[in-house]
Amino acid sequence: MAAPPDALAERVRAGDARAIARAISAIEDAEHGDGAALVGALFPQTGRAYLVGVTGVPGGGKSTLVDQLIATIRSAGLKVAVLAVDPTSPFSGGAVLGDRVRMNRHAADAGVFVRSMATRGHLGGLSRTTGDAALVLDAAGFDVVLIETVGVGQDEVEVAQTADATVVVMVPGTGDDVQAMKAGIMEIADVFVANKADREGIDRLVQSIEAALSLQPPSDGGWTPPVLKTEATTGQGVPELWETLCRFRDRSEALRAARRHARALARIRALAGELLFARLEQALPPDAFARAAADVVARKRDPYRAAQDLLA
Amino acid sequence: MAAPPDALAERVRAGDARAIARAISAIEDAEHGDGAALVGALFPQTGRAYLVGVTGVPGGGKSTLVDQLIATIRSAGLKVAVLAVDPTSPFSGGAVLGDRVRMNRHAADAGVFVRSMATRGHLGGLSRTTGDAALVLDAAGFDVVLIETVGVGQDEVEVAQTADATVVVMVPGTGDDVQAMKAGIMEIADVFVANKADREGIDRLVQSIEAALSLQPPSDGGWTPPVLKTEATTGQGVPELWETLCRFRDRSEALRAARRHARALARIRALAGELLFARLEQALPPDAFARAAADVVARKRDPYRAAQDLLA
Repeated sequence: MAAPPDALAERVRAGDARAIARAISAIEDAEHGDGAALVGALFPQTGRAYLVGVTGVPGGGKSTLVDQLIATIRSAGLKVAVLAVDPTSPFSGGAVLGDRVRMNRHAADAGVFVRSMATRGHLGGLSRTTGDAALVLDAAGFDVVLIETVGVGQDEVEVAQTADATVVVMVPGTGDDVQAMKAGIMEIADVFVANKADREGIDRLVQSIEAALSLQPPSDGGWTPPVLKTEATTGQGVPELWETLCRFRDRSEALRAARRHARALARIRALAGELLFARLEQALPPDAFARAAADVVARKRDPYRAAQDLLA
Repeated sequence: MAAPPDALAERVRAGDARAIARAISAIEDAEHGDGAALVGALFPQTGRAYLVGVTGVPGGGKSTLVDQLIATIRSAGLKVAVLAVDPTSPFSGGAVLGDRVRMNRHAADAGVFVRSMATRGHLGGLSRTTGDAALVLDAAGFDVVLIETVGVGQDEVEVAQTADATVVVMVPGTGDDVQAMKAGIMEIADVFVANKADREGIDRLVQSIEAALSLQPPSDGGWTPPVLKTEATTGQGVPELWETLCRFRDRSEALRAARRHARALARIRALAGELLFARLEQALPPDAFARAAADVVARKRDPYRAAQDLLA
């Protein structure tokens, strides 16, 4: 980090867009633990933003929906930030394709901040960096942080789970409904969106989601995920989606606290694991892992034995 | 595990299909480390099978291609196993839909073994269980193990990386080409397949892959991933795909050893991390993590500080 964490944190708290961007970059670039000082400085000012995950398979119109949600949230007088961790999103990867067109209408609006998260070279670390980036935006005073992910890989599901609420977007006629149910997405959705409501098959999609929901055990606190129809291209149904999200947010405080506790627990466990591992690496000779790997390749030891020996 | 690991290992080595299925179930059900005895017993007999990952976005015809590959590999007189970790594959999830039709033609063939891997509740553990299941099949004498995954999530990319060779399947006209390039799939492919070669846009797809490849740094050992056209439904191009995979396998021994070394290294690191963490949990009071999480939710400590305190 070029700037000292406290000075940068100060400017983030003031809502300085360049400082926010730099803080997120610092978090992305940091090896495990190096973003700790910055997060530590900002942490007391966090916990206010509403973190909303938006996930679904590619081609479901998620990005257009997020764009419309931005407009709806701004109309309500709230500041909104987007973290795009979807490699197929025009927000994250679209710059390459000149596909950033849709976002341009918010470009001059200081109440909107859009940031793509690097998706390569961060195996397993994506949920940490996204979670910490959301903390930066939270401390900077954004009322809502939209986290856009692709809901196919488990890593992305994990990212979605860092949110207070998760919206799962599906479209008719692609078999997405069935795929999503199989991929375990039914369990993580707080709100379902059946997008492209003008398409044939929309009612069948809604029915199949509702049928799948009826097979689920009752969710916590009696919240049954509603299934909303939207047409992201026209914005139809988007205000209702935002209303539903507000209703979900305002449900029992106890349930919200339980979810935040689970999230904190997962974060602490992951960080403790990383710190422990870093200590092990420091304690061992530099080539210890490479020598163990050579033994495994030569079939002298199996990987479990090799790992146990390293800890001995 | 019901049977003692050594007895089960003995039957796996003899190629007993029921024992193989039970061994993989034991690995899937095991908490971290509990499959260690079984893997340890089988490990000296492994390292012979050719592990081939087949990945790509949903709807690309991967499963049909895998089915055709089975037939081609059988024609060459080799035994082949499939591990389906793709939640959208008829091999793994299709039983629910009665979509197992295509596999039936291999059902009576003892030289073919098909197994779906559980994809839920195993966040982060999927590459370990898949890797260990591949060891079981390797020890059981299968010459080729096909590992079918969805190449969108990073977890699936990681699974694909446990293989000796990775085939990335794309189809024209869906924007998959661009998506895949953005998702970091370019870096992991050893062979590209442009499937549905009868479709419009196939040549544009091949060209865009080749264009993207030309921007890549030269790959190790001078292997440039070839781009093959296939029509999985008719089997066209599949023998050429298998030939290409054999050619890739027969390239320099040094390169293959390097890849196997990297894989062993990753496995040992992950296992050592799990073992360390299990020790930490045993050493701490049972509610230590929960108390730390409560502090984080209350903004008394940030997650980094909480993790450090637990290790102190």
